[in-house]
Amino acid sequence: MKYPNNIKKNYTKMDNHANRGMDLEQIINDTNEYYINNDTAHIYKKPTPIGVVKVDYSNKNRITDAYFKEPSTLDYNGIYRGYYIEFDAKVTKNKTSFPLNNIHKHQLLHIKNIDRHKGIVFLIILINDKFYLLPGKVLIDFINNNSRKSIPYEFIEKNAYELQYNYLKGLDYLKIIDELIGVDNNEKD
Amino acid sequence: MKYPNNIKKNYTKMDNHANRGMDLEQIINDTNEYYINNDTAHIYKKPTPIGVVKVDYSNKNRITDAYFKEPSTLDYNGIYRGYYIEFDAKVTKNKTSFPLNNIHKHQLLHIKNIDRHKGIVFLIILINDKFYLLPGKVLIDFINNNSRKSIPYEFIEKNAYELQYNYLKGLDYLKIIDELIGVDNNEKD
Repeated sequence: MKYPNNIKKNYTKMDNHANRGMDLEQIINDTNEYYINNDTAHIYKKPTPIGVVKVDYSNKNRITDAYFKEPSTLDYNGIYRGYYIEFDAKVTKNKTSFPLNNIHKHQLLHIKNIDRHKGIVFLIILINDKFYLLPGKVLIDFINNNSRKSIPYEFIEKNAYELQYNYLKGLDYLKIIDELIGVDNNEKD
Repeated sequence: MKYPNNIKKNYTKMDNHANRGMDLEQIINDTNEYYINNDTAHIYKKPTPIGVVKVDYSNKNRITDAYFKEPSTLDYNGIYRGYYIEFDAKVTKNKTSFPLNNIHKHQLLHIKNIDRHKGIVFLIILINDKFYLLPGKVLIDFINNNSRKSIPYEFIEKNAYELQYNYLKGLDYLKIIDELIGVDNNEKD
């Protein structure tokens, strides 16, 4: 696994949560690069949304004042087998549940929109040192049928798909998507 | 038509080209907002890629040094009728042709990738005060069969689809996509 570049290293100083989040991000970036190099899928991390306040036009348009904005969509999107793919990577230090406040309100709305328009939308969650793919449909169902503010770990173990980390391929999440597409195709018959 | 916010107004000072580019961007953002509000499609402008060099952690993670990066994908992507959509907006002041150096090398490669994976990929070009939708396939064919460094305006008039600006809907480019999907569906039969 490659390590974040210098800029990203600075971010990881923020706290341990951000640090682990950055590791997951790096693993996913490496996985996507592997997919791109093999022409399997073309999925990219969207640039971090930044609000630019001041630009120094006299110095090669260098930005001298800006701030991080809250994302209203998910971090990764692209195309696989003609399907629209969108997902986000979430990390929690909680051991017993995944707190739903990890998902911003606009992101949840966006997940519903993508699902309704027949896109493939999901979360990759790092919890208890394990990686899980949680389909958007399962997340929406959980929220619609529960008033809880977090998803119990047992629910994730039962209803999400565990992803294995592989040194060469990273987290081969498209293997699970193949299964999900298969299920969808059967349902359409 | 809404006008760019204060930050964007600063950009428009750069030169007239940027100014007109920003107007096209604003028109497209308004169009996408119209589509989202009507639940027709969920297409967003990706955040501008910015390289963050310095963050002031003592001042709410304010960014104090950063720079604009060159994009390697197209500016807009999303989902429509289950299809993956990706496009870019390009403006030229040239009257007789569209210079191909408006398209970065990585962007051209990306257009080919998306097309090969059955996504819908295109450019929206503002030239001679007219808006055109140029399908990725047509662009790739032109480049494969020509050594020219620009696309003649007559070629665009003949092979691209003119888009009409409408005060309410903006540039209703999905109308053209409906035609293209129709054509593709017929071809598959």
